[in-house]
Amino acid sequence: MEHFADRILEAVRAKRTPLVVGLDPRLDQLPKPLFERISASSDPLSASAQAFEDFSKGVIEAIADCAAAVKPQSAFFEMLGARGVEAFEKTCDFARSRGLLVIGDVKRGDIGTTCEAYADAYLGEVLAGKTRLRSGVCDAITVNPYLGYDGIKPFIKNCRGHGKGIFVLVKTSNPSSADFQDLKAAGAPLFEHVARAVDAWGAEGVGASGYSDVGAVVGATWPGLLTRMRELMPKALFLLPGVGAQGATAEDVAGAFDSNGLGGLVAVSRHVIFAYEREPFKSQIPAQRWTEAVARAAREITDNLRKVLGL
Amino acid sequence: MEHFADRILEAVRAKRTPLVVGLDPRLDQLPKPLFERISASSDPLSASAQAFEDFSKGVIEAIADCAAAVKPQSAFFEMLGARGVEAFEKTCDFARSRGLLVIGDVKRGDIGTTCEAYADAYLGEVLAGKTRLRSGVCDAITVNPYLGYDGIKPFIKNCRGHGKGIFVLVKTSNPSSADFQDLKAAGAPLFEHVARAVDAWGAEGVGASGYSDVGAVVGATWPGLLTRMRELMPKALFLLPGVGAQGATAEDVAGAFDSNGLGGLVAVSRHVIFAYEREPFKSQIPAQRWTEAVARAAREITDNLRKVLGL
Repeated sequence: MEHFADRILEAVRAKRTPLVVGLDPRLDQLPKPLFERISASSDPLSASAQAFEDFSKGVIEAIADCAAAVKPQSAFFEMLGARGVEAFEKTCDFARSRGLLVIGDVKRGDIGTTCEAYADAYLGEVLAGKTRLRSGVCDAITVNPYLGYDGIKPFIKNCRGHGKGIFVLVKTSNPSSADFQDLKAAGAPLFEHVARAVDAWGAEGVGASGYSDVGAVVGATWPGLLTRMRELMPKALFLLPGVGAQGATAEDVAGAFDSNGLGGLVAVSRHVIFAYEREPFKSQIPAQRWTEAVARAAREITDNLRKVLGL
Repeated sequence: MEHFADRILEAVRAKRTPLVVGLDPRLDQLPKPLFERISASSDPLSASAQAFEDFSKGVIEAIADCAAAVKPQSAFFEMLGARGVEAFEKTCDFARSRGLLVIGDVKRGDIGTTCEAYADAYLGEVLAGKTRLRSGVCDAITVNPYLGYDGIKPFIKNCRGHGKGIFVLVKTSNPSSADFQDLKAAGAPLFEHVARAVDAWGAEGVGASGYSDVGAVVGATWPGLLTRMRELMPKALFLLPGVGAQGATAEDVAGAFDSNGLGGLVAVSRHVIFAYEREPFKSQIPAQRWTEAVARAAREITDNLRKVLGL
């Protein structure tokens, strides 16, 4: 069972891209041909779940050769209840069958045996006595640190036991991340305290690549912080959201990478998966061929990242 | 559409108890007759989900007359994937049909339109164009504040629009809640900063009862903090986990309540739902009649709370 960081960095090297495509199926932004099937259905809930699955699979096929991983966003699937969660699971399975790693964007966090349940659900194995009921469908997930080490330990246990990874929210990409994450305690903002904890939690989980199975979410919207973050977490993989729709560029994230162009994962969602909604793709590509726009948008970002990172 | 705080306090007054029973179906602690059905099944995953549903419904019937609400813990249901989430939804529907409010213990938190998706999923309505796909199955949910106001605003919007509530994690009941929540910034621990924010976020959502639709999770394991918490959040309902298995008592939580014995909700899980595992119930009640132990344990706690709070 190979180490998570080694697995994903192998994919980054092989495909020459740190791109992670976020799968955020939004009902009001689905490609027209998919949305029309919902309107036409007598069971619009199931039709929506099917549309989410078809959309996600279409994106996966389109970006498989120029992304290291996908990051399905649980919130959108949960919107559709149990049927949506089924589509989430099928999406994860399909991505893995296409050689992509899956980072489940679930931002979970709880304590004790409840936290163990989340860890087993997404990263480990669920047992009834000695019978295996199912295995977690993700290679890694995002987790929330507010509850402290009790809320992280069970995830780490599963990382070590099953070759999986976690990305702890350290400094998020949104404007009001400042509300609490920037509060200064003992001279340093809260997110630096979390960063130090991430470094400590990951110390015993470093793979052959030199990177740990405990990574960090750091918003690409704060390029000025990346060097400091790298200093505090030298062995953490950084998952970097904020490039594209949130305004950050490939150049902005360069500080997160080592001299081999490794160590960061650039998470892009809307800018790729809804590329057919914007120019030049909107005018050039008919609605039925929406996956071409997705493929071209992903290719563009990967080309930029290769240039900036020398991959 | 009645205000959430008014609805739940009406239930507290009518049933003379602030007890909220946590529904945490754990495979290894299910009553023997239910667990045996899983072992005997050729589809143990579906059988487990069915057992979770049956267990939850059994608990709900047993405690319906001496609890104001139930608090299903999403983690345990998610362990079983989509089938588990279906059991979660059915459990919520069943509880509401029995006159109990449902506080979904989901501890969600994300930003922007992703957060809106969670808010719609659990508290609001999910639309495809003008077609309503489904409604959220909870009356309130727990949410995580680490992402700041961006990660709370969409939930509040749904509280106001649909008569729902949220409980923001302020100071959690676990030992390592100290890791970050107790860090001192500008002279006050982080959790006090979160408490002040909870008070501000809830200011415009106060119902006829004088309490707001933005509540707080405060561990009953920190009785010394409750008076200070009440000072900082005079209008917040407190959801108080930690009584029972985690060691806190009815007396410990008294500081969270006003002079009418209102304002707090006492969340008890294992001590009630697995009462059949411990004495005196274990010796007195045969396994087939496990719900009697659950009913008696809930009644005991409610009796204690009535005495302490004068309800």
